[in-house]
Amino acid sequence: MDISGKNSVGIVETKCFTFADPPNEMVLESGQKLGPITLAYETYGELNAERSNAILIVHALSGDAHVAGYHSESDKNPGWWDLMVGPGKPIDTRNFFVICTNIIGGCKGTTGPSSIDPATEKPYVLSSPMVTISDMVQVQKQLIDHLGIKKLSNVVGGSMGGMQVLEWAVQFPDMVKSAAVIAATARITPQQIAFHEVGRNAIYSDPNWKNGEYYDNEAPAKGLAVARMIGHITYLSDQSMMTKFGRRLMNKEKFGYDFSTDFEVESYLKHQGSKFVERFDANSFLYITRAMDYFDLSEKYGSLEAAFQNTESRFLVMSFTSDWLFPSYQSKDIVKALMANNKDVTYCEMKDMYGHDAFLIENPRVTNIIKNFLASVERGGCCK
Amino acid sequence: MDISGKNSVGIVETKCFTFADPPNEMVLESGQKLGPITLAYETYGELNAERSNAILIVHALSGDAHVAGYHSESDKNPGWWDLMVGPGKPIDTRNFFVICTNIIGGCKGTTGPSSIDPATEKPYVLSSPMVTISDMVQVQKQLIDHLGIKKLSNVVGGSMGGMQVLEWAVQFPDMVKSAAVIAATARITPQQIAFHEVGRNAIYSDPNWKNGEYYDNEAPAKGLAVARMIGHITYLSDQSMMTKFGRRLMNKEKFGYDFSTDFEVESYLKHQGSKFVERFDANSFLYITRAMDYFDLSEKYGSLEAAFQNTESRFLVMSFTSDWLFPSYQSKDIVKALMANNKDVTYCEMKDMYGHDAFLIENPRVTNIIKNFLASVERGGCCK
Repeated sequence: MDISGKNSVGIVETKCFTFADPPNEMVLESGQKLGPITLAYETYGELNAERSNAILIVHALSGDAHVAGYHSESDKNPGWWDLMVGPGKPIDTRNFFVICTNIIGGCKGTTGPSSIDPATEKPYVLSSPMVTISDMVQVQKQLIDHLGIKKLSNVVGGSMGGMQVLEWAVQFPDMVKSAAVIAATARITPQQIAFHEVGRNAIYSDPNWKNGEYYDNEAPAKGLAVARMIGHITYLSDQSMMTKFGRRLMNKEKFGYDFSTDFEVESYLKHQGSKFVERFDANSFLYITRAMDYFDLSEKYGSLEAAFQNTESRFLVMSFTSDWLFPSYQSKDIVKALMANNKDVTYCEMKDMYGHDAFLIENPRVTNIIKNFLASVERGGCCK
Repeated sequence: MDISGKNSVGIVETKCFTFADPPNEMVLESGQKLGPITLAYETYGELNAERSNAILIVHALSGDAHVAGYHSESDKNPGWWDLMVGPGKPIDTRNFFVICTNIIGGCKGTTGPSSIDPATEKPYVLSSPMVTISDMVQVQKQLIDHLGIKKLSNVVGGSMGGMQVLEWAVQFPDMVKSAAVIAATARITPQQIAFHEVGRNAIYSDPNWKNGEYYDNEAPAKGLAVARMIGHITYLSDQSMMTKFGRRLMNKEKFGYDFSTDFEVESYLKHQGSKFVERFDANSFLYITRAMDYFDLSEKYGSLEAAFQNTESRFLVMSFTSDWLFPSYQSKDIVKALMANNKDVTYCEMKDMYGHDAFLIENPRVTNIIKNFLASVERGGCCK
């Protein structure tokens, strides 16, 4: 732990911003209204006088606003991208004012299905309207306006975070100086929808789910754990699983010839499943995976080229050769569409064995590329 | 339907062969004993006077002994590999005597967890000993002996079937003239174990599972359906799912913005899940996936090269470039180990988009290769 270390942002707290109070509810992409909306967020570093040094980090499915640092002295683990954010780290909080918000539909402080509906004083459950990636971004925009920031130096995110980065660049071209899209896609494919749908079905199948009405009772932990186990297979790669686990047995020298845990990989998956249910809400899993399913910039704008027509950002697009959940070709489609529009884009395809989660792992090549991209943007450099 | 057509084997029936009556139970790889064992099997064509024209087909996870033809006039669908087996078809029943058995541990007539234990007159449930790929083959060997066949002209199978083919060639070298190993592996990887374990956990999580004791009550249909849905994603490919479903919506023109079925791919998976539970036993799913997990010829014999040292078969190994569940490199490992032993092996890597299930789909390139391989074996030709 490095709470007081010089590279940590130290003890941080999650703040809240509430807006869209009735009758001024926010109109979501579905046409439904939602309000008030509370947004949980954290910030690190100082906003400069020109308000020009802000970086917005957007998180993936199971992330939250807590990117870096610790919530208390006794906190065992730092935020989810602590290796990237802090004084002297690639996203250097000595220079940048870093913001991260929990997404709408989530369960980490921002309004979602487990939040209390002021109209009923009970949790929204499934009466909470469906959200989209665009809605996530629209909600973040409210906070950025509230903070008095006219232009973000950078918006950065991996996986579903990368999808939000794209929406930012497309919807608010004059607010995004640079955009870093990591291990993402501009269009969710049927295979990705399929994995989400199986995870959702695991939750629906849990008798504790009760159409989402479980907040006063036992949560659908078994269903959510299965959903998470599926997820974890897709976040790794065949090769990384072979390196990490091989066919090693778990605390035994020969096969048990029963249905107890024989292989280390089984133990890993079960552990990931049971850890997840302690920190995540099954209904939020449903809402967020659905939001991803809907995501297709080409559908929304006619074509991906058309989507990027008015963007003004410099782009960094990064993919990993071993990522089979968001394969490189999906990043290349983004790059091609940007190039067709003569936009400023840097593409890095990292030869790597760590699969989709590669961007979350300590990897100097990845962190250096992001660091150098940010520095280049600050210098006003252009790769064109 | 082609029951009376000239290319169909027509109406066929599943037969039974029972052996290993106590006190002469079979000793399984685990060391546990099982007996009596009933083996369900079908045969098509005629065994010639020399008993030299027999082909043994071995099936994959969810297959059964019913490879070709129909069980009755009202049967809607033929056997699972009807496109391959029949008069004039690649495995030509005018020339070959074709045998297929349901695997041990299964639920289609061969002894498995849902079979009645004669000792208790109740289903075995989880008291049925664990089986392995080797046990499947040992059981098949009893039938082949019973039929008076000294040497099989060919043993052929895809996926888990291919694993059985390898065991046949390794364990009974003088009984296997030729072996066709399709979309298979000699060693199950942690990623494959992981998919099995998630499927098993979906079943364990179903409250109807009750440690397998559900035969008098409702079956764990929801858990088994989720397991099957996961399987179906792994049997297809990213590209084939895009071609087959794209992002098309199901009977609607715009997103429902709810948790009903929006996308065609969701409907497909749900359909596959619910179809499967009508025909398959959840406990058998547990046993068979476990049998696969244990499979590693290199572990068992010290190395894959050592495993193949005494084989006498001609080999055909076939893989599909889009098969990410049993990727080509796993077939190449088999080919390399055979070549290192100077064995007669033909390798075909098919450039294909259909994923793991490619071998079950009508594809003249695949069927021609198998047909020509069988013809070449009969002619006594050798590719060396």
